[in-house]
Amino acid sequence: MHAHLIHAHPEPCSFVAAMRDVVRETLVEQGATVTISDLYEMRFNPVLSAADFPVRARADYLNCALEQRHAHAAGTIAADIRDEVDKVLAADLLVFTFPVFWFSMPAILKGWFDRVFLSGAFYGGRRIYGKGGLAGKRAFAAISLGGRRHMFGDDAIHGDLEGQLLRHFFQGTLGYVGLAVHRPFIAYHVPYVDEAERTRMLAELKAAVSMIDDRPFLPMPRLDDFDETLAPRKTPR
Amino acid sequence: MHAHLIHAHPEPCSFVAAMRDVVRETLVEQGATVTISDLYEMRFNPVLSAADFPVRARADYLNCALEQRHAHAAGTIAADIRDEVDKVLAADLLVFTFPVFWFSMPAILKGWFDRVFLSGAFYGGRRIYGKGGLAGKRAFAAISLGGRRHMFGDDAIHGDLEGQLLRHFFQGTLGYVGLAVHRPFIAYHVPYVDEAERTRMLAELKAAVSMIDDRPFLPMPRLDDFDETLAPRKTPR
Repeated sequence: MHAHLIHAHPEPCSFVAAMRDVVRETLVEQGATVTISDLYEMRFNPVLSAADFPVRARADYLNCALEQRHAHAAGTIAADIRDEVDKVLAADLLVFTFPVFWFSMPAILKGWFDRVFLSGAFYGGRRIYGKGGLAGKRAFAAISLGGRRHMFGDDAIHGDLEGQLLRHFFQGTLGYVGLAVHRPFIAYHVPYVDEAERTRMLAELKAAVSMIDDRPFLPMPRLDDFDETLAPRKTPR
Repeated sequence: MHAHLIHAHPEPCSFVAAMRDVVRETLVEQGATVTISDLYEMRFNPVLSAADFPVRARADYLNCALEQRHAHAAGTIAADIRDEVDKVLAADLLVFTFPVFWFSMPAILKGWFDRVFLSGAFYGGRRIYGKGGLAGKRAFAAISLGGRRHMFGDDAIHGDLEGQLLRHFFQGTLGYVGLAVHRPFIAYHVPYVDEAERTRMLAELKAAVSMIDDRPFLPMPRLDDFDETLAPRKTPR
């Protein structure tokens, strides 16, 4: 198995960096090869713009999806994007380690998706979810939160984390391109817990990664339940 | 009324830019003053990092929330952030115009929140939702989507847009800091519709903005329903 880790935290010695290291070490112990994109260390540019497309399909008006399809087909996408696309395509498992900022990703990671998950290569038309461009690959995220576990859930103050607040990430981004998305590892209350609790969480993460093949997947929309316009079928298949 | 518009689109002549102009013109016609942060034009830096904090509370380890609180109190936050904070604090109404990328914001706008919505100034501890730092102000978003209206909703393929996919934005970001969040204006299927439909949508937006004071608000968590640990009260107040 080959895994590619995408890491995004502004502090090199963060708890999230420790989670990244645990994931990497545990995967290597199991015989996997592992590569890493450390977005802060790389000073990755997260801003999708005309500069991504040195050779334009349409010079007078920037339609990003159109230009992504054109640049991918023509091999003219910006070099920093091409490098990341190649790493994604080479991987069987994508791992994301990041702190939750505003119930979502840090901008540097959000922009990695904006720029790297190319229209055409990764999705397009009805080539989404089970038919997405990365179907057959898996994803796993290990994330940190300042909030506590009881703040999340259907009756909790913020709502459900996986199905509501982070649905744009787990389903709308990872699942959308066809990835099978393992149940995430969520470290709660990280800035406020003591060293013993951090050690306990890292051990729990290690156990989870050592059994990653058995880890359940999040539910995703099934294309068979929808018609050719992606409206719900009146008679389910 | 003073409104501040935050705009994020990589194409200066986009439909989203036309929505921004309609919002601005309509507000001015009603007697409001309007300022704009055009994030692409400003080349706004969306990456929260140690550079945001020239004078550190703790030099050896970057805890972003801690440094935001310290820098805000000491008046040492980076100048580009200070400028945006001042614009937010001067406004009665914040307007956001952006295209939905990956069921969320473009990274340049995500990073605007990461860097500008300061811990301490905008939220902290139980100073969230109705007690957030921007309580008393309002927010309104006019956004564009490639998808069609029937792809969103409880039984639709992607799920509910306001309550699930964009909950991290409407509730988890805008509502979290105390803003009253008007029901958004959503332009569907934008890259694929004809000029007549664009004109119709802009007219609908103009009508919505001309009656913005009557526009309903999205539901938000009520702090009174939760105890001092933010767990649900067994006996609702």
